[in-house]
Amino acid sequence: MAQADFKVVLQEIVHAARDGAAEANREGGSFSSGKVMAYYDVLTIAMEQAEVMNIPLDEIGLEGFDPDGLLGRESPISG
Amino acid sequence: MAQADFKVVLQEIVHAARDGAAEANREGGSFSSGKVMAYYDVLTIAMEQAEVMNIPLDEIGLEGFDPDGLLGRESPISG
Repeated sequence: MAQADFKVVLQEIVHAARDGAAEANREGGSFSSGKVMAYYDVLTIAMEQAEVMNIPLDEIGLEGFDPDGLLGRESPISG
Repeated sequence: MAQADFKVVLQEIVHAARDGAAEANREGGSFSSGKVMAYYDVLTIAMEQAEVMNIPLDEIGLEGFDPDGLLGRESPISG
């Protein structure tokens, strides 16, 4: 399969996770906060791993992504 | 960058999402159910998109993955 194939799958995941996180952030509540947390997890792993692999973030739709911004409303991470 | 790079990022995401979903399923509660829902979302998109691209599921760590099994305990999707 072509190199582009894995990239496309990656882009779709990132796109869906960013959308899902933004929507869950608007919803509020415990269930939605859990969703934000999981999307945050996925997106930070994508970002960190892309950096390790020297993949520019704009190649996978992560340009301008601020993971901490996702948690700005309330931070499920403490300590 | 090499083809393998995008694949590695994808594998890492899938691995983390499967682990995260399994852990959240063990935890229970509304916050954790939200996490399961988001991981389910990410994993089903990865699976569907891989199928569209003719990527064998075992190439990205999705062999034997049953998305509905994630929601077996309680289904956040109704209707």
